[in-house]
Amino acid sequence: MKHQELTHAERIDWLRLARTPQVCPVTFAKLIERYGSASVALEALPGLAAKGGRLNALKIVSRDEAEAELSATEDFGARILMACEPDYPSLLAVLDPPPPAISIQGSHDPDTSPSCAIVGSRNASAIGVRFARDLARELGQSGITIVSGLARGIDGAAHTGAIETGTIAVLASGLDHIYPPEHADLHHDIARRGLLVTESPLGAIPTARDFPRRNRLISGLSLGTVVIEAAMRSGSLITARLAAEQGREVMATPGSPLDPRAKGSNRLIREGAALIESADDVLDILRQAKRPVAAESDTPEYESGPGNEPDASVRARITELLSPSPVSIDELVRQSGTSAGEVHSVLIELELAGRASVLPGGQVQLRYAEDPD
Amino acid sequence: MKHQELTHAERIDWLRLARTPQVCPVTFAKLIERYGSASVALEALPGLAAKGGRLNALKIVSRDEAEAELSATEDFGARILMACEPDYPSLLAVLDPPPPAISIQGSHDPDTSPSCAIVGSRNASAIGVRFARDLARELGQSGITIVSGLARGIDGAAHTGAIETGTIAVLASGLDHIYPPEHADLHHDIARRGLLVTESPLGAIPTARDFPRRNRLISGLSLGTVVIEAAMRSGSLITARLAAEQGREVMATPGSPLDPRAKGSNRLIREGAALIESADDVLDILRQAKRPVAAESDTPEYESGPGNEPDASVRARITELLSPSPVSIDELVRQSGTSAGEVHSVLIELELAGRASVLPGGQVQLRYAEDPD
Repeated sequence: MKHQELTHAERIDWLRLARTPQVCPVTFAKLIERYGSASVALEALPGLAAKGGRLNALKIVSRDEAEAELSATEDFGARILMACEPDYPSLLAVLDPPPPAISIQGSHDPDTSPSCAIVGSRNASAIGVRFARDLARELGQSGITIVSGLARGIDGAAHTGAIETGTIAVLASGLDHIYPPEHADLHHDIARRGLLVTESPLGAIPTARDFPRRNRLISGLSLGTVVIEAAMRSGSLITARLAAEQGREVMATPGSPLDPRAKGSNRLIREGAALIESADDVLDILRQAKRPVAAESDTPEYESGPGNEPDASVRARITELLSPSPVSIDELVRQSGTSAGEVHSVLIELELAGRASVLPGGQVQLRYAEDPD
Repeated sequence: MKHQELTHAERIDWLRLARTPQVCPVTFAKLIERYGSASVALEALPGLAAKGGRLNALKIVSRDEAEAELSATEDFGARILMACEPDYPSLLAVLDPPPPAISIQGSHDPDTSPSCAIVGSRNASAIGVRFARDLARELGQSGITIVSGLARGIDGAAHTGAIETGTIAVLASGLDHIYPPEHADLHHDIARRGLLVTESPLGAIPTARDFPRRNRLISGLSLGTVVIEAAMRSGSLITARLAAEQGREVMATPGSPLDPRAKGSNRLIREGAALIESADDVLDILRQAKRPVAAESDTPEYESGPGNEPDASVRARITELLSPSPVSIDELVRQSGTSAGEVHSVLIELELAGRASVLPGGQVQLRYAEDPD
């Protein structure tokens, strides 16, 4: 996302747009691209939602509510950074799309040293916990910032090992929500000496969909992700997949085939993740890693101007092609026979109408009628 | 090696040539290629050794001694198979070079089913032993013959798991030497229901150089080799390297980075071995494995006839290029400026003279003066 200096009023509008539940990071980036600023995009929202078929009015966060969130966050000793702002972590800024706004608390600057995520099972073995802690400590001593999710097991061990050298904990909740309770001291220690990062506003209790967003920040803040003791279908495997999608390094420590906690990491190795046995192994991989740069957006720019807006028949055709199973936007473009620009315009309208969800990675799905909105 | 039906006298001479200590498998194959038969090669040996600079007479096994070994082996309930004979295992026959003569005891025919080696640490963990036994049993139930080295730990577990379905134990010793003592029952069981195989004659106690030869037979009798719990610098890693050189599949089971017994197998995976967690994983690899065929020999045929024999100056030049560090025969050809045929001729003479050792894989080294000969 292009760097911009925002006025206070523009920051407020940026936060309002980011906090609108129907505006996912993909749609946020598209709206900024199309309308040039959050303020203009906010004005366009009700009209877009109506075109997408929204029946009730879109609930947009008010200026007062956004002001209140900003002040409460500052009073709490934290800051909100918008994706276009200079202080926003550069490894997140190059993501496609970047999280529109993050809240941070702590003294560690993520842009001053290379970083590596260490994630794994909450129910880790004693040996796995020890390995994670030692690996984090040794990487820290070599100047690497350790990123993780502050969960029980491997995450907590990784933060603990790196507390003296620099660690970033990404939360699914607001900064003031401490979870798990036994990590209260660690949480406060990281808030002081390291850095807490979250996409959720102060006071937010995490819901199911906040965890994939948290995982995308963990891998996104890191040059590479090491998975230790991940079972099949675990959040750590999702983080590894996200790291790969973001063009970051994927690493895993192997384990015995008879240990179910090693199934996921062994699977990753089989699929091409680097096999990690020591800090030196990680350092070798990170040394070879390319510095991430902003991806060329794989979706075309909006053809702006009112003349290029999709008409009702195009909208109907695209809506018909959607189903609750995710489909790629490329596939929609092919099957609808319309331009990519038009497909994206329709998808934004449908998303604002609460009828579709656009997922990072270029997939889109119809939302179930009973989905909360 | 080309199939031949040998007369009794030819078998005796074949065995005499094979049992001559200075005749390694590489030299054996070259001599058969050059002279057409073991009998003619035997007659040429003293002259070749003298040209190579041998001071004392070459000790060649007598006809009576070879007859005695053949009868003793048959009396013991075993057989000796020569590399050119039809019953000789086809996976060994395609090796370059094949072991000239093997002794076998048992009822299992290695040519009737696909085979897989399972090898690993003698000091295996309880979990490793259980994994090896279960893997061998499940592969056996899928029709795979399990090959191993009858050592303590993983080897013994692999044989035990496959005893009902078919297993081949390769020994470094003669068939009548039982080692380790606690595997006596297993040894006898395999001699009856499976197959014992060795390059060593009846009565032989293994010396250091018999183990690499044993390992070459383990991998050579198998479409692929699975390594379980191998430490660094272990015999199992040598077997894996030999399997790769023979064009066979290399597989390994991963383990925790904190377990020194997993270092070797993790290293193999890192270097490209297939990561194995289950019998299905092995079956997938074996299904894709190409049926091994005789390698095109990478050394040129002898230019036979007395006119093409190397003269003294060529012999001196090549001898000078040798050192106790192994050098490739290709390199010798390049540096000596003579033909590959001449280099090979000189090397056979030097080997028979006890001055050089030709190793499978195309390397040659000067022998230390104090080497036993």
